[in-house]
Amino acid sequence: VREIHAGILGATGLVGQEVLAILEERHFPLAELRVAGSARSVGQRMPVPGGEVGVQPMDDAFFAGLDVVFSAVASDIARQAANLARRHAVLLIDKSSAFRMDPAVPLVVPGVNDAALTGHSGIVASPNCSTIQLVMALAPLAGLAPLASVEVATYQAVSGAGREAVQEMEREAAAADAVPSVFPKRIIGNVIPQVETFGENGYSVEEMKLLHETRKIMNLPELPLAATAVRVPVYRGHAEAVTVDFVREVPTDEAAGRLAATPGLRYVPMPDVPTPLDAAGNDLVWVGRLRRSLVRETALQLFIVSDNLRKGAATNAVQIAERALGL
Amino acid sequence: VREIHAGILGATGLVGQEVLAILEERHFPLAELRVAGSARSVGQRMPVPGGEVGVQPMDDAFFAGLDVVFSAVASDIARQAANLARRHAVLLIDKSSAFRMDPAVPLVVPGVNDAALTGHSGIVASPNCSTIQLVMALAPLAGLAPLASVEVATYQAVSGAGREAVQEMEREAAAADAVPSVFPKRIIGNVIPQVETFGENGYSVEEMKLLHETRKIMNLPELPLAATAVRVPVYRGHAEAVTVDFVREVPTDEAAGRLAATPGLRYVPMPDVPTPLDAAGNDLVWVGRLRRSLVRETALQLFIVSDNLRKGAATNAVQIAERALGL
Repeated sequence: VREIHAGILGATGLVGQEVLAILEERHFPLAELRVAGSARSVGQRMPVPGGEVGVQPMDDAFFAGLDVVFSAVASDIARQAANLARRHAVLLIDKSSAFRMDPAVPLVVPGVNDAALTGHSGIVASPNCSTIQLVMALAPLAGLAPLASVEVATYQAVSGAGREAVQEMEREAAAADAVPSVFPKRIIGNVIPQVETFGENGYSVEEMKLLHETRKIMNLPELPLAATAVRVPVYRGHAEAVTVDFVREVPTDEAAGRLAATPGLRYVPMPDVPTPLDAAGNDLVWVGRLRRSLVRETALQLFIVSDNLRKGAATNAVQIAERALGL
Repeated sequence: VREIHAGILGATGLVGQEVLAILEERHFPLAELRVAGSARSVGQRMPVPGGEVGVQPMDDAFFAGLDVVFSAVASDIARQAANLARRHAVLLIDKSSAFRMDPAVPLVVPGVNDAALTGHSGIVASPNCSTIQLVMALAPLAGLAPLASVEVATYQAVSGAGREAVQEMEREAAAADAVPSVFPKRIIGNVIPQVETFGENGYSVEEMKLLHETRKIMNLPELPLAATAVRVPVYRGHAEAVTVDFVREVPTDEAAGRLAATPGLRYVPMPDVPTPLDAAGNDLVWVGRLRRSLVRETALQLFIVSDNLRKGAATNAVQIAERALGL
């Protein structure tokens, strides 16, 4: 078995920690694992599969000799990482939005568009968490009939906004007068219909990511998609209430059969329902509440839930590496 | 000023208590206020505007001599109450779903369809909480162009399921191993895409109420409407992500102007957003996130929030009484 020299950028963050755990869980064949973090964390010791390592700065020394680096850092740092990765011919699997819409960079959900990996030029982007679980359910359905449009209302976990957001929620849970700073309003006992900033058209960055990334991954550049992204006081697990309209009527039982037969999906028949607590800690995309829309006979409604830190982030990145490296 | 002899059924419940508070807040002209409750609570003393009364059983003695009774009890008890109300010629304002779809009973949201009160026969139904806030926003928009369809995803507060549901949420917040009984799964740190039971078509009772009640209140018996109703760990305040499709394009600024000019609505311009914590404790229906749908040019998207115990229940019932009694 080939053994891989790997690195993690942003190893101390929520997603970085999850990548570490998932490499171990999946018995990823590591010859070596390096971890890099911000100036603040450099020098800290961190447990890794098979031992303990020190957190390094992100520089030439970090990249030299590695096969693959998982990047779980913000877009500006990811751009610097891409330069280092190119110089050292390291495969960079990037979780930020820096390269997702770059035509030269594949945006990949293993199981949905693996073929996009062919001939990549050293950078592969992993999509936004809310997009990954959506396309995991849309892809099998698109095999039944062409999609006409998709509408989504999300229920997004606080961990999607990083460790500071989780700490903010915990402060609020402990003290009624805790003042929010990560979110525009309190999140405990509340829902906030804003995920990232708003653009001119009234849609948030998160909502536009859902549109553009879904179009790119599914290779449907004209697919109409409109989303409302809402943050909810959930630690782990994004949920999505989705209406999928097809160009013609698709029988509900055919859709159910297709979803149930798709690897990586867990189809939940009525009257059971999938919730974030069902999805937390596993790699499945849970799909339930399947029914024909009362508004359009050609549309189906469904409820999609997945762990935003696992399949929505770390697991998807590790699966990309496994396929890209032929493991 | 005419003084009213009034009663409250289910006075010890969440909505009953709210009716009490709102009668006092609005200086409802009370000559007398009687309260009735379950066998368990009969005999308890309860503070009311201007004093204290004992909880009575719901019987002939309770109804005799009253002008109006606010009913905040379950449908089966509400049917018994209707018989008593008829016998004693008392106006019954009923919050249950027992009579809402009865063609002989007006289903009223003051400000939306006051005219429906004309010639009522002694029972007036107050709609479901999630319906009230929806039609408050839809009604002014329907004045701009006929509605083609409405799609809704809800974020519903736990208090909508009653006091035991709130206690369940509090138990869960305090103890990680608290076992849910009111809800099918844990609600703390979770969202549950089920509000009431499911029907044959895959929609829940709550989702079908949104359809049928909206059609009746707006007098649009064919209006296509599809909803996904989801419970969220919020104490007070339902939220709704709504797509309103019109038969022709409606300018966004015209819609904003109309919403901003409608009494009882609070229009929230971007980049601010309305949340349940903004709506909790007041009688406004907060409407924000107004934007043109990216899927259909004729559709607008909006986010609607209101306090489910106030405008969604108690306030709406008291407003019905004020209009029906000509106060």
